[in-house]
Amino acid sequence: MPIKDGWFAESEVMWPGQAMMLKVEEVLYEGRTDFQDVLVFRSATYGTVLVLDGVIQVTERDEHAYQEMITQIPMHCHPDPQNVLIVGGGDGGVLREVCRHPGVQRITMCELDPLVVSISKRYLGASTASAFDDQRLTLVHADAAQFVKDQLSVYDVVIVDSSDPVGAAETLFTADFYMSLRRAMRPGAIMCNQGECVWLHLSLIAEVLKHCREVFPSVDYAFTTIPTYPSGQIGFLICSTTPGHVLRQPVREPEPAVAASLKYYSPAVHAAAFVLPGFAEKVVAAD
Amino acid sequence: MPIKDGWFAESEVMWPGQAMMLKVEEVLYEGRTDFQDVLVFRSATYGTVLVLDGVIQVTERDEHAYQEMITQIPMHCHPDPQNVLIVGGGDGGVLREVCRHPGVQRITMCELDPLVVSISKRYLGASTASAFDDQRLTLVHADAAQFVKDQLSVYDVVIVDSSDPVGAAETLFTADFYMSLRRAMRPGAIMCNQGECVWLHLSLIAEVLKHCREVFPSVDYAFTTIPTYPSGQIGFLICSTTPGHVLRQPVREPEPAVAASLKYYSPAVHAAAFVLPGFAEKVVAAD
Repeated sequence: MPIKDGWFAESEVMWPGQAMMLKVEEVLYEGRTDFQDVLVFRSATYGTVLVLDGVIQVTERDEHAYQEMITQIPMHCHPDPQNVLIVGGGDGGVLREVCRHPGVQRITMCELDPLVVSISKRYLGASTASAFDDQRLTLVHADAAQFVKDQLSVYDVVIVDSSDPVGAAETLFTADFYMSLRRAMRPGAIMCNQGECVWLHLSLIAEVLKHCREVFPSVDYAFTTIPTYPSGQIGFLICSTTPGHVLRQPVREPEPAVAASLKYYSPAVHAAAFVLPGFAEKVVAAD
Repeated sequence: MPIKDGWFAESEVMWPGQAMMLKVEEVLYEGRTDFQDVLVFRSATYGTVLVLDGVIQVTERDEHAYQEMITQIPMHCHPDPQNVLIVGGGDGGVLREVCRHPGVQRITMCELDPLVVSISKRYLGASTASAFDDQRLTLVHADAAQFVKDQLSVYDVVIVDSSDPVGAAETLFTADFYMSLRRAMRPGAIMCNQGECVWLHLSLIAEVLKHCREVFPSVDYAFTTIPTYPSGQIGFLICSTTPGHVLRQPVREPEPAVAASLKYYSPAVHAAAFVLPGFAEKVVAAD
């Protein structure tokens, strides 16, 4: 039971010796799906909070940082993304960000756990999970590695919004999976994957980057600040099927309506997100 | 007593509803000075930790992010800093960073609380508090507002490494104090002050920036990531006595020996640190 004396404390799965605590006003949901433990609570100062297997996934106060950056960076690395695949992302935040783009024609979301979607719609429907009724969406509940396996040249942008690479999401960080994704991507397509935190998992990041570089000709790494993720930051692996693609500069400005709706992302933030602290830059930089 | 069941939890002074926890291996010191409560413990995964009034000041694992950025940004905004004033900074981290520069001839540290210095030397002597025997240092234990009051045109760089603006440090965030500092600064001098976190204190930051802009002709705001500060980030108010000084670009490269000794700062990191999330940029940008 992660709530004690009115405070939720994050479990230490991948970050031993440290834990974020949030003050709880009311537990809204607690249960177990076929895949994971789910907890939803109303916090004192971070709005509604979604927790999977003891790890904070979404707080209404800061989720925009993650959702915007994992989505808008790859969307603005592509000149005209029309067909988008979201792997995971059951809370609906990445979907909301993709839906801002009027040029997108088809969105496929492959989320393993249907209950995460229904719980998010119920408790985060006005904030994070606000775009599930978009007519462009096809929602599939399947294992993503299986789902993309036989698809050829379909997607312009692929966003892998997975949980951490322990347990169910482990296969989503392998060269095999990246290879399947690449086959499913059109020429010029961009892939963006949740990429952990340089303060916590630098050697894991180096390993996953190596897998990416085996598969994609252009690979880079960016990050966003986000208070309620471990150590206050999370990174992104950004890959292009185009050799020599400079991912740290957006290839286009956000359309005015998109720009006006964003709280975190801007072209300047895009570029700065790729500049890493010295200790991380050394490890992340391509050989 | 902030330690319970072997975990230290930060007090919520200025960030209600959230708290960082660190696992404690051994309490090394616990006491009260004339000014504040002091706690030093060996943590499971962040090295030795210094806590003042319930708030984490230093962990050996991540302190370099803060110490380098609050110091190396202003040091690299000045072409030839020779005389440096440190206000606060009793843990010695800023001093260590200033001492890396062979061109510096005099360093004055004005730290209110002598016990913070002696405790830091005892428990962080091999890491953060490693430069107190530098021959260029004059250490003064006094109220900084009083100390700088009658000084005229003395310093090239002033670094205000204070605790948060509640209690003793409150006067260090006022226009009056900035005015005294400015008088104590030489033409072309740079001032850098701890500037809280955009995720937590945006209206406070806007207010303090206003004070800075009343006093200094060039003012800007940067930030660093740092896992053990509230929300994982902290900002800096950076001010120049020179009108039109573009602070977001360093005026010189770090000397090779300095560059080799740094873990976080680089010229690219300097520039990127001034790029704020959209929601913060709106508030922080000059009118």
